[in-house]
Amino acid sequence: MISYSDGKEDLENWIVSELGFHPDTLGKSEAIMCLGNGYMGLRSATEEPYMKETRNLFVNGTFNKAQVNEVTELPNLADVTKIDIRIDGERFSLEFGEKKDYIRQINLKTAELTRIFEWTSPKGKKLSFEFKRFVSLHNLHLIGMKMTVKSLSDPVQISFDSGINAQMSNSGAQHFLEGDRRIVDKKIIQLVQTTNESKVDVVINTTHKIMINGEEIVKDPEMNMARRKVWLTYDFSLQPNDILEMEKLTTVYTSRDKEYKNSDYQIHTLQESSLKDLQDCLEKGYDLLFQSSKKEWKNKVWNAYNFEIKSEDSFDQIALRFSLYHLTIMTPAHDERMGIAAKALSGEGYKGHSFWDTELFILPFFIFSNPEVAKSLLTYRYHGLEGARKKAVENGYLGAMFPWEAAWPTDGEVTPKLGDIDIITGEQTKIWSGFIEQHISADITFAVYQYYSVTGDIEFMDDYGYEIIFDTASFWASRLEWNDEKQEFHINNVIGPDEYKEHVNDNAFTNYMAYFNMKLAIRYYEKLKKENSVVLKNLTEQLNLDESYKLWQLKAEKTFLPMPREKDLVIPQDDTYLQLKEIDISKYKNQEKVRTIYRDFNPAQINTFQVTKQADTLLLFYLLQQTFLQDDNRISETVKQANFNYYEPKTLHDSSLSLATHSILANDIGDMDLAYSLFKKSCEVDLGQMMNTSDDGIHAAAIGGIWKGAVFGFAGIRLRDGLLSIRPKLPKHWHHMKFTIHWRAQPVTFFLTSSTLSVKVENKGKVAFEMYGKTYECNDFIEIKLDSME
Amino acid sequence: MISYSDGKEDLENWIVSELGFHPDTLGKSEAIMCLGNGYMGLRSATEEPYMKETRNLFVNGTFNKAQVNEVTELPNLADVTKIDIRIDGERFSLEFGEKKDYIRQINLKTAELTRIFEWTSPKGKKLSFEFKRFVSLHNLHLIGMKMTVKSLSDPVQISFDSGINAQMSNSGAQHFLEGDRRIVDKKIIQLVQTTNESKVDVVINTTHKIMINGEEIVKDPEMNMARRKVWLTYDFSLQPNDILEMEKLTTVYTSRDKEYKNSDYQIHTLQESSLKDLQDCLEKGYDLLFQSSKKEWKNKVWNAYNFEIKSEDSFDQIALRFSLYHLTIMTPAHDERMGIAAKALSGEGYKGHSFWDTELFILPFFIFSNPEVAKSLLTYRYHGLEGARKKAVENGYLGAMFPWEAAWPTDGEVTPKLGDIDIITGEQTKIWSGFIEQHISADITFAVYQYYSVTGDIEFMDDYGYEIIFDTASFWASRLEWNDEKQEFHINNVIGPDEYKEHVNDNAFTNYMAYFNMKLAIRYYEKLKKENSVVLKNLTEQLNLDESYKLWQLKAEKTFLPMPREKDLVIPQDDTYLQLKEIDISKYKNQEKVRTIYRDFNPAQINTFQVTKQADTLLLFYLLQQTFLQDDNRISETVKQANFNYYEPKTLHDSSLSLATHSILANDIGDMDLAYSLFKKSCEVDLGQMMNTSDDGIHAAAIGGIWKGAVFGFAGIRLRDGLLSIRPKLPKHWHHMKFTIHWRAQPVTFFLTSSTLSVKVENKGKVAFEMYGKTYECNDFIEIKLDSME
Repeated sequence: MISYSDGKEDLENWIVSELGFHPDTLGKSEAIMCLGNGYMGLRSATEEPYMKETRNLFVNGTFNKAQVNEVTELPNLADVTKIDIRIDGERFSLEFGEKKDYIRQINLKTAELTRIFEWTSPKGKKLSFEFKRFVSLHNLHLIGMKMTVKSLSDPVQISFDSGINAQMSNSGAQHFLEGDRRIVDKKIIQLVQTTNESKVDVVINTTHKIMINGEEIVKDPEMNMARRKVWLTYDFSLQPNDILEMEKLTTVYTSRDKEYKNSDYQIHTLQESSLKDLQDCLEKGYDLLFQSSKKEWKNKVWNAYNFEIKSEDSFDQIALRFSLYHLTIMTPAHDERMGIAAKALSGEGYKGHSFWDTELFILPFFIFSNPEVAKSLLTYRYHGLEGARKKAVENGYLGAMFPWEAAWPTDGEVTPKLGDIDIITGEQTKIWSGFIEQHISADITFAVYQYYSVTGDIEFMDDYGYEIIFDTASFWASRLEWNDEKQEFHINNVIGPDEYKEHVNDNAFTNYMAYFNMKLAIRYYEKLKKENSVVLKNLTEQLNLDESYKLWQLKAEKTFLPMPREKDLVIPQDDTYLQLKEIDISKYKNQEKVRTIYRDFNPAQINTFQVTKQADTLLLFYLLQQTFLQDDNRISETVKQANFNYYEPKTLHDSSLSLATHSILANDIGDMDLAYSLFKKSCEVDLGQMMNTSDDGIHAAAIGGIWKGAVFGFAGIRLRDGLLSIRPKLPKHWHHMKFTIHWRAQPVTFFLTSSTLSVKVENKGKVAFEMYGKTYECNDFIEIKLDSME
Repeated sequence: MISYSDGKEDLENWIVSELGFHPDTLGKSEAIMCLGNGYMGLRSATEEPYMKETRNLFVNGTFNKAQVNEVTELPNLADVTKIDIRIDGERFSLEFGEKKDYIRQINLKTAELTRIFEWTSPKGKKLSFEFKRFVSLHNLHLIGMKMTVKSLSDPVQISFDSGINAQMSNSGAQHFLEGDRRIVDKKIIQLVQTTNESKVDVVINTTHKIMINGEEIVKDPEMNMARRKVWLTYDFSLQPNDILEMEKLTTVYTSRDKEYKNSDYQIHTLQESSLKDLQDCLEKGYDLLFQSSKKEWKNKVWNAYNFEIKSEDSFDQIALRFSLYHLTIMTPAHDERMGIAAKALSGEGYKGHSFWDTELFILPFFIFSNPEVAKSLLTYRYHGLEGARKKAVENGYLGAMFPWEAAWPTDGEVTPKLGDIDIITGEQTKIWSGFIEQHISADITFAVYQYYSVTGDIEFMDDYGYEIIFDTASFWASRLEWNDEKQEFHINNVIGPDEYKEHVNDNAFTNYMAYFNMKLAIRYYEKLKKENSVVLKNLTEQLNLDESYKLWQLKAEKTFLPMPREKDLVIPQDDTYLQLKEIDISKYKNQEKVRTIYRDFNPAQINTFQVTKQADTLLLFYLLQQTFLQDDNRISETVKQANFNYYEPKTLHDSSLSLATHSILANDIGDMDLAYSLFKKSCEVDLGQMMNTSDDGIHAAAIGGIWKGAVFGFAGIRLRDGLLSIRPKLPKHWHHMKFTIHWRAQPVTFFLTSSTLSVKVENKGKVAFEMYGKTYECNDFIEIKLDSME
């Protein structure tokens, strides 16, 4: 059971606990209590091994293609967390003997993982165990572990094997060549592994410090090697009340580290410097190293984001902290050559690839809260133009066609081609997203638009942003298909956000977003013509913009945009959806288990029903209303309401991306109860009590959605065509909500109650915003009464 | 605990049992109860999984190099043996609940593995389980499994996952590309995997048949796929006394199968035909299929070898049967393109490579008992000439330099270059065998000599044998190093059989065997000149024999052969051994754990002690006394005795190859108690009570040594310079011993008691043999009194 109320006093609403040990549902805590720092992610498998465990250590950006017929993925590094413990010669496991007061906790404030319990061995010997672990936010290469064992009743012999195990794989796919292994001074283990295709070297160093009753024990362990493994065996006798402490410190470095980007890299330099780092760490010890990391968390995360909810349900506050915690550990803020993985660094699911999840569901947090990081993530997409142009050429198009799944920026498309079983044919289903789920190019353009609108970062636009927008517009212009009879352009044979509908024509989301993409390119081209001829000249030379501009103009205007149908204002999701059979989906609309519809139907059959996997048409309203298209009648508030009423009941939310969007829209249309219930469900995707939802890793986009639901939904913060707009609608049981966002390089703190909105501009700058049609300018501090508004 | 006395009546001395379940020492039964048929080997991991299990399925000859910096090895195929069972939703494991009467048995007579026990779940529900399994000797592609579960006390819900899991690896090294997976008719699972470098396709089909109370249940299971996995989930309710039977039948085929050697192979043909085979098997069912296999065992193995020991210690008889059982299942009798692996097909140890183990320790059994198979194994070495010539060229020599470790015959050397930890440097030790352990070329020549002498198979010699002998002789002639001062040839910088001495000069074993190799080539060259000029002409053209012959003559005579030293007749193992420091090795001379000396010293240090890993100089006597060199004073009985006295106390027997040789020599020199004690130790290497000896697989050479110890040692059967010689010395507590050997294509049955030897020539042929200087000729049957002899 996951518990949220174990933090007391200054740790209130900071602690997520697992109460009791459950060997069959290990994935839950492993994933939601995952540690990391953006450089690496360490899934929280327990020290002692269990049958159903999943041990993962990922370093961002170290992609590799293990076999010629597989796609590139983030490889699972050698493991340092496993410790095989024997008590009086017998394997220690919580599946044997008696356990008492078992509790595992992630402290979101300090990012420390702890596990405490008493255990009585099958032979009746009683011991207490405490395990602690952190991945440093101060030294991005450092993993700290500490084990404390106390014999409570009898003399015991405790021995353990601990080292580095490079027999790990990604569900059987082995990414690494076996490399150099050694034990330095009978103390420090160093293991090198190199990815077999991309040739990334990984150097892992690990060492142990043992104390009994506070006194360091200097005793040579037994040294062992086996294939892809090195480990030490320690053996000690404990008398009753003796306390054994073991610190295990590990450093992880790779040849992909930023410092080697442009330098002459040599493996032995990396071996030496990483060893040196570990030696320095060893001198400091676990406690000091942990203090440094904790300080970073305080300054860089909690003080910076300044987020607070006072709710009658403390779960809401902890969910937001959980969101900020994971958004921090998943994001490679240190390196603009890397993106965010769909399962973060907490599991093998989706192979570490970046999807539109980043731009539409995670990036908004960084754009508003930490623009530097947002810039880094968008720069990753800029580097990805190389792969996007490659994909366009391969598909016979012009411009930049971004891959549905991205890994190395230069690779282009890396979506796997085959998936789960088709229950009708008995074969693997074909995955079409990499071929025809194309809206991502427009989604990335939207993100650039949003970033620029919120930050005003013209430098980014000159260097990177315009090029992305122009070249995706050119992709769309070449992608459109002319219908001579209707004298208009269509987009046929795509998958929209609703992946339960494959090979559809004129998916509303895709067509509108392509239209937005071209219109935005036209606007920025014209803007540049007026304001910055140098940048325009360079881009024109590179991208043949004069010609492109004409095409955008010509084609955007003739792009078919599905209209709300007359009788009920519903915009058809695609050209056949509204004619499909309606089925009773109540059986499948159940967040305990997603995608259960696949147990009864195969994709070909689901394609014939009016059932939607996730927000599709509805997402348009949320996006386009932030742009210069906000006044378009086709996406007016009335139309939004009508479409919400039509599509929400048909949407299974079988993608974790869906709930937050529907929650925000429910807020928009004033259905506060539904908004809160959808928000709560989105918080529960990972953090809730369903024990198998996170087995393959946490849901990065859903976690981004928690923040979005709170800030864009309940606080009602929204970009509207270049302006900051606010429509606060706090849930009834929220007393207040506080957070700091960045608007045009100004940190602005909002404090909301049900009756007042206070705005404080932190650096004495000036911030303008709109609320219910009225414009406010704030230089320092402003408090607005909300009672009579709206 | 391993028990040998559970077989009753006609199964007396046929059953090896494991009593009680021991989750920490699973490797023992997994390996010694391994199933197979020479085509494939299936390690006997239990159906339900445990932490310390090792699941292995190997198909002979499917070598692959998983990564560019690894050596080629036998890949671990997808697993079909694991069945995840749940009782009332809880994972079934013998680590939980209460177990009663647990017994696991291999029936050596029928080659069926069984496991029976009662189990009470943690919730108190009592069930009985029976598992049966065989790998067919009739259909080499078939694995049969059967599970019978009876609910003894309560209604229970039993569900299980069973299918094919290709996430398997060789200790982390993944050999296979992920291939096609499907479920045909919701019933038969087919999975294809292809080795990533050698491109061997493997097709595995598996299916289940379920009966409750004898009635077949037709109910669609839940179908599942994950990365590299396909499985079905079955779910049934049992009432008290209901009996659930589940048969799981599997076929395994590969593109390396002999029928595809010269034909146009296509994967889909293999997929279809292997599926068809499984469908045929499914119609027959477990029991019928098992009967066919059992019949093959009776005819091809037990009746053919006709081996019997009547001993007061029944262990002796069972050990011999154990030996014949494993010699049968390890040997690819069906395909001359394959050799025998040092750990057979029972574990990952030594990577499936063939060593001299085959020629000196296993082949004698086949030469004397099943010459067709011996021929196949030597033909594998003939095919290996390609790799051997490649190795010679790479090392700057002429002729054929056989690899220390062999896989694909064309590959040449595949010995890994790095091994276990050096406890002084902390680095991996360098493995020198692949570079400088060179005696194997002469060992193979000896085996050809022995095969020809025993069988008289001149056709083999014409086609293959002479070429091996001539080209290895040419290797040795080019390998010798001229010492101008001494006017003789030396062989410097080698490893002899004693691998505790690296980089030695003039290792007696190597020099004498090289000398034998050249002398044998000279003899056969001269013989061919007289008897078969056609063969000689062809070989001369191919191998430039006229020139070579001169070189052999010149060089053999001037090859330095270490003399017994005057004071004690000890032949120096190499040019420094007798000057090295003597140490007390009693601490390490302990067969409970081998190679414990590495815990105190590293190889460089051990190199400086008079300590020998295994039979080295002593082995010479056993070998050369079978040849035309038998009358050489340097290997006389007196010298043998002196050397035995010197070297036996210095030999750790840290190789399992060593014991049988010393046992035979102890017999030769009349130390009957030592002979029996060494024989018994050699039987116990795998079959004994030490629970960790076989973790990496059984010891194929030691198992060949059991037969050798009995037949060459106690029965005293020996080849002597082309003649059959007999010196029976039955252990005191053996009443009689019976076996059939083949001498010059005649099956001859020997029946020995302490007082008489009966010889029966089975096919009314004529066989001559020598005993204590007297020559006998036997046409039909002869009985000789032994009392007054010797």
